[in-house]
Formats: sequence, structure tokens, C-alpha cells
Amino acid sequence: MSYVTIIGLAAAAITTISLFPQLLKVWKTKSTKDISLGTFLLFCGGVLLWFIYGVLLNDLPIMIANSLGFIQGLIILIFKIKYK
Amino acid sequence: MSYVTIIGLAAAAITTISLFPQLLKVWKTKSTKDISLGTFLLFCGGVLLWFIYGVLLNDLPIMIANSLGFIQGLIILIFKIKYK
Repeated sequence: MSYVTIIGLAAAAITTISLFPQLLKVWKTKSTKDISLGTFLLFCGGVLLWFIYGVLLNDLPIMIANSLGFIQGLIILIFKIKYK
Repeated sequence: MSYVTIIGLAAAAITTISLFPQLLKVWKTKSTKDISLGTFLLFCGGVLLWFIYGVLLNDLPIMIANSLGFIQGLIILIFKIKYK
């Protein structure tokens, strides 16, 4: 594995992990007042496109990061819609 | 420009725009109670690594999305630290 791929995988791991504290926070508090609905709508659409881009380039870090990012973003979005 | 690059640029544009509603929201309300500090710390570190990955691959969509994402993430992070 090249060092470029390792950097990409590290980037993918960190940005993928990054949403998890936010997910835990809304899960525990059920409070989403300060979270932007627009941000999570756009985020879910955007990472879906990134995933497609990764598939077309056959780029593993882009595919992994954005599929997991989409799932977490979607759960936060559902919390935002459910607990306004 | 290939259609793959166009998809990448669209993905970059949408995910880059996605943070802006959140930035506007914290700017207006000065309220960041529901926002996760851990998420924005990890996010800023992660997109910085993605930017480096984009530079190493000479991939324009990855570079654009992550440099602008970093700036917006950093501003939200500063608001989070300033207005707890």
C-alpha cells in the first residue's frame, strides 16, 4: 500500500469518526435546536455524490468514508426532524 | 472535463456548501449547546488530511472541498469554544 493511500485511509477514518460524537450527543440529549437542518440535508446529498465519485475512480478511501458518513449523517438528520 | 470530474466537483460543491447553514446558524444565535466539540475538532483534523491527500493525487475536487470545509469547520469550532 502506498503512503498516499495510507494518508487517504487516515483522512477517511478521521472524518468518518468525526460525526460519531455528534451522533452520540443528539442520541443522549434528544436536543437538536442548534443543529442546522439545511447542513445535514446538503451533507447527506453531498456525501452520496462523493461515494459515487469514489466508485467511478475505484478509490477505496473515498468510498469507505462517504458511505459511513452518509449513514451517520442520515441518523443525525432523522433525530433533527424528530426532535425539533 | 470528464463526467467523473464533473460529479466530483458537484460533490465538492454540495459538501462545501453544506456547512454554511450551520455556520450562519451559530453566527446568528451564538448558541452551540447541541453542537459536538469532538466532532468539529476531528472534522478539522480530518479535512486537513483529505486536503493533503488531494494535493498528493493532484485531485482538484478533493483539494477545493476540503480547504473550504476546513475554514468553515474552524469558524464553527471557534464559535463552539467561545459560546459554550
